[in-house]
Amino acid sequence: MNYKIAVVPGDGIGPEVIDQALRVLDRIGEKYNHTFTYTKVLAGGAAIDATGKCLPQETIDVCKASDAVLLGAVGGWKWDNLPGDERPERALLGLRKELGLFANLRPAMLFEELSQACPLKPEIIEGGLDLVVVRELTGGIYFGEKGTKETEMGPAAYDVELYSEEEVRRIAIVAFDMAMKRNKKVTSIDKANVLESSRLWRRVVAEVAKDYPEVELNNLYVDNAAMQMVLNPKQFDVIVTSNIFGDILSDEASQITGSIGMLPSASLAKGNFGMYEPVHGSAPDIAGQNKANPMATILSAAMMLRYTFGLGQEADDIENAVKKVLSDGYRTPDLMANGGKAIGTKEAGELITSAI
Amino acid sequence: MNYKIAVVPGDGIGPEVIDQALRVLDRIGEKYNHTFTYTKVLAGGAAIDATGKCLPQETIDVCKASDAVLLGAVGGWKWDNLPGDERPERALLGLRKELGLFANLRPAMLFEELSQACPLKPEIIEGGLDLVVVRELTGGIYFGEKGTKETEMGPAAYDVELYSEEEVRRIAIVAFDMAMKRNKKVTSIDKANVLESSRLWRRVVAEVAKDYPEVELNNLYVDNAAMQMVLNPKQFDVIVTSNIFGDILSDEASQITGSIGMLPSASLAKGNFGMYEPVHGSAPDIAGQNKANPMATILSAAMMLRYTFGLGQEADDIENAVKKVLSDGYRTPDLMANGGKAIGTKEAGELITSAI
Ligand SMILES: CC(C)[C@H](C(=O)O)[C@@H](O)C(=O)O
Ligand SMILES: CC(C)[C@H](C(=O)O)[C@@H](O)C(=O)O
Repeated sequence: MNYKIAVVPGDGIGPEVIDQALRVLDRIGEKYNHTFTYTKVLAGGAAIDATGKCLPQETIDVCKASDAVLLGAVGGWKWDNLPGDERPERALLGLRKELGLFANLRPAMLFEELSQACPLKPEIIEGGLDLVVVRELTGGIYFGEKGTKETEMGPAAYDVELYSEEEVRRIAIVAFDMAMKRNKKVTSIDKANVLESSRLWRRVVAEVAKDYPEVELNNLYVDNAAMQMVLNPKQFDVIVTSNIFGDILSDEASQITGSIGMLPSASLAKGNFGMYEPVHGSAPDIAGQNKANPMATILSAAMMLRYTFGLGQEADDIENAVKKVLSDGYRTPDLMANGGKAIGTKEAGELITSAI
Repeated sequence: MNYKIAVVPGDGIGPEVIDQALRVLDRIGEKYNHTFTYTKVLAGGAAIDATGKCLPQETIDVCKASDAVLLGAVGGWKWDNLPGDERPERALLGLRKELGLFANLRPAMLFEELSQACPLKPEIIEGGLDLVVVRELTGGIYFGEKGTKETEMGPAAYDVELYSEEEVRRIAIVAFDMAMKRNKKVTSIDKANVLESSRLWRRVVAEVAKDYPEVELNNLYVDNAAMQMVLNPKQFDVIVTSNIFGDILSDEASQITGSIGMLPSASLAKGNFGMYEPVHGSAPDIAGQNKANPMATILSAAMMLRYTFGLGQEADDIENAVKKVLSDGYRTPDLMANGGKAIGTKEAGELITSAI
């Protein structure tokens, strides 16, 4: 099989971590006799510098003509003075909308070897932590009508949070399907005691739940969820929530693992198409110094193999290789708090490749 | 002086904790020769049961005719089947709007004696934790237009997040004034990379900052803030944010102290009027069993003395009495994780009263 991948290295450490992910993919191709074809395209600050736009049409076209997208990271100080709506990060919003990536999957897991990096007390995370946040990604207040206007109170600005039943239904289905393959527990998070859109959300999620009698559904208010995430994160299996609440909670969830440099993500469209990227940012302060941890990007490539290409065994191979490198004691700088054998970006990619 | 206080015991443990707070206030009155006059009124579930409405007009009138409001807690399972907009908690939203309580102050501090209850690792909170979240309370998506409508995507529901410059200005002023009395650091939290209302927020906060050259202002995106709260909460002094982000972040902040039963809050209007209440909820599971910790409500009464009545020394007295009871080793059930001399709601009130 030939798999066509649009590759968006992006800014900061993006290109470096992407290089290592491609190296790992090549090794998988070799081992299993698959061909991965990469087309590199620009987005974010790199695209602004080259074309004046953070998301050139060509990038969108190439992504659409591919089977999946692998992205490094976008953004950086260099573009911080641009107005909000011309920033590199806007490329992400554009890609999500143009490619119909409505379901963002953010697993937050604790790697046994790295559990000391967790900011929570050991007793809270004892026995591990393994949850996934399913965040709605193309609706809600991110994409609702917005603008400025004159009001009774003077000049004002507004953003509309809006959800249709259909949008809620399709993201709920993703969450319940995922729960069926995991621990059969869905926690839906909203603010139904205040928001009309949350009341619709809660009602539709309950309807979808009827088709999954084996799955336990809980509803939590978002304020309570933000507390539970710190107090008892082990209670969660699959969390499903809106775009803005998901933005906040998935970042909180990744932080409590203590190893944000390890966390991958997938943004899925209808069908098998998806965009895959690490949870961490572009870290311009360490760019080009062989210091970045490429494992989140490598694990994102593994998610791509599993979710878009249906190559579960190949994905397992990558995940096991990452674990092996960790259990052999190798650590990139971000993981060195408790010592270990120091390695850089390239060495990490090399070691993982050899372990496959 | 005669101070008129509207007292809303509310539901669950509300009445019990309020009783102890009033006892403490009486002791302060005795010691300093102040008269506190209490008018008890209904709100929440208790009001629904008695009048069919969660916020009777009489309650609003009495509150408006008083110098301050002291509230226990509202809500409980009993009313959980009511539609979202008839729930006891709606009384809170009504009180906030009717009384113009636009500034919610939620201090999150670590009591030295209770630092073991903190879910974060000791090294993260070493040296203590003392921040206050200043949350805008009468605007934003809580009170914006909301409803259901037919869209291209079918039936949908929406809520409008809207902020006027004036609303942002007055809450920013509260935050900067507070920072001047503390560590001169304000962190404004928004989502300016996505929301138009956040861009207005950020601009107005920067304008207000010009009048406070001694105060350091930082801006954080809300997703990053949710991470920083777990990773390094000591970086915060005064946080200022919108109604919905404040709801989420202030709950996260109170949870990382590990002692939500200790945390007071104030909701202030223009001038000196304010409503004071504990951060914790109505805890119907332990209601009427002398198990509730009244300290958050007692400390809320202390905030009332300080902010509305300008009685700083009296407030100090209460706070010191609470600390003394803790350092003498007394613990209500919620604080017993690391042992101590077990006391109930009444004994806690008694001990604090005697310590004044
Ligand atoms: C950069 C920003 C627009 C983006 C978001 O808010 O979705 C980011 O925080 C994320 O979670 O991918
Ligand atoms: C009960 C609810 C409406 C309320 C809010 O969201 O403001 C509560 O969570 C709070 O923070 O006081």
